[in-house]
Amino acid sequence: MTAPLLSFEEASVLVAERASRLASRSPARERVSLAHAAGRVLAHPLCADSDQPPFTRSTRDGFACRAAEASTHAFLALAGSVRAGDAPTPPLASGSACEIMTGAPVPDGADAVAMLEHVEVAQVKLGGRVRLLPPRTLAPGENLVARGAQAHAGDELLPAGTPITAAQIALAASCGHASLDVFVRPRVAILTTGDELVPVDAEPGPGQIRNSNAPMLAVLVAAAGGEPWVLPTAADNAAALDRALAKASEADLLLISGGVSAGKFDLVEPALARLGAQFHFTGVRIQPGKPLVFGELPARTTSADQNEHGTKCFGLPGNPVSSAVTFLLFAAPVLAALAGSRAPSPRFALAQLAESTSRSARPGLTRFLPAWCTFASVDGALPSVAQVPWHGSGDLAAFARSNCFLVIPDYVSNFEEGAIVRILLS
Amino acid sequence: MTAPLLSFEEASVLVAERASRLASRSPARERVSLAHAAGRVLAHPLCADSDQPPFTRSTRDGFACRAAEASTHAFLALAGSVRAGDAPTPPLASGSACEIMTGAPVPDGADAVAMLEHVEVAQVKLGGRVRLLPPRTLAPGENLVARGAQAHAGDELLPAGTPITAAQIALAASCGHASLDVFVRPRVAILTTGDELVPVDAEPGPGQIRNSNAPMLAVLVAAAGGEPWVLPTAADNAAALDRALAKASEADLLLISGGVSAGKFDLVEPALARLGAQFHFTGVRIQPGKPLVFGELPARTTSADQNEHGTKCFGLPGNPVSSAVTFLLFAAPVLAALAGSRAPSPRFALAQLAESTSRSARPGLTRFLPAWCTFASVDGALPSVAQVPWHGSGDLAAFARSNCFLVIPDYVSNFEEGAIVRILLS
Repeated sequence: MTAPLLSFEEASVLVAERASRLASRSPARERVSLAHAAGRVLAHPLCADSDQPPFTRSTRDGFACRAAEASTHAFLALAGSVRAGDAPTPPLASGSACEIMTGAPVPDGADAVAMLEHVEVAQVKLGGRVRLLPPRTLAPGENLVARGAQAHAGDELLPAGTPITAAQIALAASCGHASLDVFVRPRVAILTTGDELVPVDAEPGPGQIRNSNAPMLAVLVAAAGGEPWVLPTAADNAAALDRALAKASEADLLLISGGVSAGKFDLVEPALARLGAQFHFTGVRIQPGKPLVFGELPARTTSADQNEHGTKCFGLPGNPVSSAVTFLLFAAPVLAALAGSRAPSPRFALAQLAESTSRSARPGLTRFLPAWCTFASVDGALPSVAQVPWHGSGDLAAFARSNCFLVIPDYVSNFEEGAIVRILLS
Repeated sequence: MTAPLLSFEEASVLVAERASRLASRSPARERVSLAHAAGRVLAHPLCADSDQPPFTRSTRDGFACRAAEASTHAFLALAGSVRAGDAPTPPLASGSACEIMTGAPVPDGADAVAMLEHVEVAQVKLGGRVRLLPPRTLAPGENLVARGAQAHAGDELLPAGTPITAAQIALAASCGHASLDVFVRPRVAILTTGDELVPVDAEPGPGQIRNSNAPMLAVLVAAAGGEPWVLPTAADNAAALDRALAKASEADLLLISGGVSAGKFDLVEPALARLGAQFHFTGVRIQPGKPLVFGELPARTTSADQNEHGTKCFGLPGNPVSSAVTFLLFAAPVLAALAGSRAPSPRFALAQLAESTSRSARPGLTRFLPAWCTFASVDGALPSVAQVPWHGSGDLAAFARSNCFLVIPDYVSNFEEGAIVRILLS
C-alpha cells in the first residue's frame, strides 16, 4: 500500500523492466490463415524456404550480357529473349546478349543487364545485334539481384515475436506460408468502477454519467494486441469490488478504471491488497494520470506456468483522457510483452510545434496534452503539431478531436513555436 | 500515354488536390454498433445530447465550498457529503462546506472544491468543521468543471468524416450512441499481373515466384479503410488484361501491380488507355517506385453519381517494396478521400537519425528507405531511426524487418548521424 510516487521516466523504466521479464514466457500459439494473420504476432521464426531470390533476376528491362564484353561497346549477337515467368534460357555464349525483362531469370554466363535505354539495337529479332552506347560502361552485378543475395534457403528471416503487418504477410507469402503460427492474444479484463456510471443505452439520472471507459479501453486493448473482456461495472463498495476482482483476476492482465485517487471511497488499492497484490507504484508524476496504480497479484500455484508471474494489474484513473494516456504509456507495453510481441511500445515520434504551449500550472509533472499533428505534409514542410484546447482530463470532446499527445517533460515549463517536440502516437 | 514524370512534391500535391475533389462526394452510409465502429469513418456530425459535463462536477476529493469564504481560513460547518453517482445535494448554505468525492455533483452555492490534502478537519462527521490551511487560498472554479464547460446540449462535437478510434468511441458512448452511422468502405480492386506469379500455396517452377503483392496490398487496403477485392492474377497479354480490367473497373479504386516499367511486355498503361483512362502522371522521381502510374477511368453515365468522378486507378510497380511505398504515399490518400475520411494521409513524423546514411546513387530522386525506429524511448531519449540494410526494392526480408521508411529528399545526398529526419509511418 505504501509504494512510491515515481517520475515518468522512473515509472517507464520500471514497466519496461517488468515487461522484459514477461517476454521470457512463451504464450500459447494457434494457427491462422495468412488472410487472418495481420495484427497478430509471429510465434515461430520465419525461415526462407528457398534462396531469395530463387534465381538471379533482372531488375530492369534490357539485355543480359557479360559486363566486360559490353563495356568494349562492340556489338553482341542477340541470343534469345526471356521474360518474367519464363524458365531460364540456356547459358549465354561468349560474345552474345539475351533480351530480358524485369523479373526474368538472368541466363548463366551473363553477369549484368544493360538497360534498354542505354543500348543500340541493330535489328530487333533473333539474329540481330546490340551494343552498349559509349561512353557508358557496365560493371558485373549491375541491374540484377544474384540468387540468394537476400537470403539462402533455411536462413531465419524474422524472429518469433515479430508483429505481423503488410510486409510480414508479403514475406510469408513469398516463402509459401498459406497459414502461420501466431501467439494467442492475452485476455485483458476491463473492470470499470463507480456508482455514477450507467450503460451507454441508459438515460443518466442526476449525478450520473454514461460509462465511456469500458468501450474505449476495449478498443485500445484490441489495438494493442489483446482480447478485451469487459466485465459489468462494479459498485463503489468493498464487497462488490472483491467479487468482481475474484473473477477478473483470471485474466492475463487486469485493467481497473476509477477509484484510485485519494478519497475515502477509493477502494481499488485496498481490494487489490486483500487479493495479496504487490504494488510497484501507486502514482506517477504525470498530467493527466497521476493516481495510476501498477501492481501484481500473487502467482497462482494451481495453474499452468502461464501464470507463474501472477496477473499484472493497473488501476487507471477514471477520467477518460487519464485512462487512455496511462493505458498507452504503461499498460500497452505490458500487454505487448504478454502478447509475445517485440513491437516498440509506447510509440513516440517527433514533430515541429505549431504554436507555443502555455506554461505548466503544475511544475514537476510530465504533461501529455491532446494534440493534432498534420502528419501529411505534401509540400515538404515538417509534420507540425498543436495542442487541442481542452478543459482537463474529463474533456472527451477535445480528446476526440486530437490524433496524438504532445509531451512536455517535467523539467520544461513550456515550449516555443518551432521547437522539435516529442509526440505520443496513439 | 504521354504524361509527365513528376517530382515527389509535385505528385503529392496533385494527388492531394484530386483527393480533395473526391472529398466533396458523400459515400453511402451504414449503421454499425459501437462495438464494431472502431476503424470506420463517422458519416454524420456527432452532437452533444446534453451539457458536458451534465452537472458541475468535482475533479478532486475534498470539500465543496465558496472560494471567498474558504480563503479567510475560518472554519466552515460540514453540511453533508456527496459522492460520485449521488443525486445533487441541497444548495450549500453560507459558511458551510460539503464533503465531496471526485466525479460527484458540486452543490449549488459552492463555486470551488478545497482538496482533501489542503484542509484541516476538526471532526469527521456531520456537525464537524473544516478549514483551508493557511497560507493557501482558493479561487472560484478551482477543482471543478462547470456544467456545459466542455459543450452545451446540441453542440457539434465532431464533424462527419472523423475517423473513429478509441477516443471517438468513448465520446459517442458518453453521448448515448449505442450505434453510429458510418461510411460504407470503398471497394478496392487489387489486380496483380505477371506470368511469373504463382499462388502462395503453389510450388514455383523455374523462373517463377509466389504472388506476395496481392495479400500485402489487401492488408494495406484494409488498414487504410478500404474493402479489398483481390482478383485472379492476370497473365502478361493484352487480352487477359482487358478482361481483368473490365471487371476490376467496377471498383471504387483500382490497384494494378506490375507491368508498368519500360519494357515491351509492360502492358498496363496501354490496357488502361484502351479503357479511355486519362493519366495524371506515369512516373515519379522517387526510389523505389519511380514507374508509378496514376490515372482515372471515364465517368460511367449509367451508374449513380457515386461514380461521377470515374474510377481512380494506380499502376503500382511490381517489386513489393515499391508497391508498398507507392501505395502509402499516393493510393492511401485517394482511398482515404473515397472513404470520406479526414485523417491525414500519408503520415509523416520526425525522428533522430541513429547513423549517417549512404550517399545517393541516383541524385534527383526522393528516397524512401526501409528503416527501424525505436519509437519507445523510456529514458527520455529522442526516438531514433536507422536504415535497415537491404538489397533493393525486391528485398522483402529487409522490408519485413523495418517499421517505417526513412525519407531522403531529392535535394539531399545523405544525412549525418543525429540529424532530425522525416519518416513515413506505415
